[in-house]
Amino acid sequence: NLLGSWFLVSFFAAYFSLQVIYARRAYGISPPKVSGPPDFERVFRAQVNCSEYFPIFLAILWQAGLFFHQGLTAALGLLYLYSRYQYFIGYKESSSGRLAPMYFSAGVLWILIGLAAVGILHFLLSHYVGINILLFSSL
Amino acid sequence: NLLGSWFLVSFFAAYFSLQVIYARRAYGISPPKVSGPPDFERVFRAQVNCSEYFPIFLAILWQAGLFFHQGLTAALGLLYLYSRYQYFIGYKESSSGRLAPMYFSAGVLWILIGLAAVGILHFLLSHYVGINILLFSSL
Amino acid sequence: NLLGSWFLVSFFAAYFSLQVIYARRAYGISPPKVSGPPDFERVFRAQVNCSEYFPIFLAILWQAGLFFHQGLTAALGLLYLYSRYQYFIGYKESSSGRLAPMYFSAGVLWILIGLAAVGILHFLLSHYVGINILLFSSL
Ligand SMILES: N[C@@H](CCC(=O)N[C@@H](CS)C(=O)NCC(=O)O)C(=O)O
Ligand SMILES: N[C@@H](CCC(=O)N[C@@H](CS)C(=O)NCC(=O)O)C(=O)O
Ligand SMILES: N[C@@H](CCC(=O)N[C@@H](CS)C(=O)NCC(=O)O)C(=O)O
Repeated sequence: NLLGSWFLVSFFAAYFSLQVIYARRAYGISPPKVSGPPDFERVFRAQVNCSEYFPIFLAILWQAGLFFHQGLTAALGLLYLYSRYQYFIGYKESSSGRLAPMYFSAGVLWILIGLAAVGILHFLLSHYVGINILLFSSL
Repeated sequence: NLLGSWFLVSFFAAYFSLQVIYARRAYGISPPKVSGPPDFERVFRAQVNCSEYFPIFLAILWQAGLFFHQGLTAALGLLYLYSRYQYFIGYKESSSGRLAPMYFSAGVLWILIGLAAVGILHFLLSHYVGINILLFSSL
Repeated sequence: NLLGSWFLVSFFAAYFSLQVIYARRAYGISPPKVSGPPDFERVFRAQVNCSEYFPIFLAILWQAGLFFHQGLTAALGLLYLYSRYQYFIGYKESSSGRLAPMYFSAGVLWILIGLAAVGILHFLLSHYVGINILLFSSL
């Protein structure tokens, strides 16, 4: 479900933040410092990078769910969150460990953007012009 | 009201940004530089940390208001913003000044997450199963 | 349209991210490093600064569109995105190149905040008190 998918984002965000807090303790990097050994910096950057994308992800998720299809959108949302989790884990291990999940999550995001675009186009066309390009739409 | 609570976020965000701009002037740290004396870095980090949490806060606020109870959610939202303001002020003074409001604001956020969870669960159960776990719901 | 305006944000966000990725390659700054020659740092900071404001922008856009007027809001939204694009381009060239579009985009954002405030006030007043301060409202 879309609600659950959106809802989970806060758990991931909280989890990533806690990881940074633990890493700060483990490496003794007290705020406001943000630089330190690469091992710390990778955890720190992983969290920053994920938070950067979350608002966009939420906005797109919402639009795709509203204008395309709830179930499919929710499934892709879960996939995105899962790949972001993999990204976090991978980045924590090594710099290159982030790459595969990064590409995967970017792919999922582009698919969601595509679905939202089709959904919105369909909504506008059927609303203003009366053409139906999407017969299986959930609307 | 929930609208007002959501709306206030932009004022806080604008206020924090302006504080960073003033701090940049006061300490002569012109962009793209982001490091400098700890006094500047604390203001800078305070703003970054707050913006990191705002999207999550808005998403949760919206869900708790929609699925649980508008008035209670709005009150907690105001409490969160107030504690974020305290966080900013405290962090500006000293690194440890941020801790108490940080814990407080995290606590408020967790309560909001809990309310949203209960609200969504209640919605799903009463919608699909017909069980009512929340008699005082605003829905 | 408001949908389109919201939707475009993801394209801009993706475009800015890609620019940072290209800049990372061009200057050989591999993550988790975020500092390097000013030319890289400006591109990096431009993307960070834009992502910082996007959630606030989306929230305000949504409120202004809902409570004030869709068409006007969408037009201002496009103006904001355009000025953010100018900001990115300008910041990439030089530090001072960011200033004019920055002020412009901040101005547009304040107008949107004002519209949302008037819209919400009007909604509350007409809903609870029965006074109509906004005759041309889209609601
Ligand atoms: N990005 C944050 C994520 C974790 C967090 O929210 N930490 C709290 C408690 S240590 C904080 O106040 N961080 C200060 C800061 O972000 O500068 C960080 O770097 O610390
Ligand atoms: N995080 C921003 C907050 C304040 C802001 O938005 N500043 C404007 C005007 S000085 C800006 O263009 N900052 C450049 C930057 O963020 O790199 C900062 O560090 O400056
Ligand atoms: N803020 C990001 C924007 C671009 C981006 O998302 N890059 C991907 C692929 S290079 C990444 O994993 N960046 C690592 C990081 O942000 O630390 C950056 O600095 O790289």
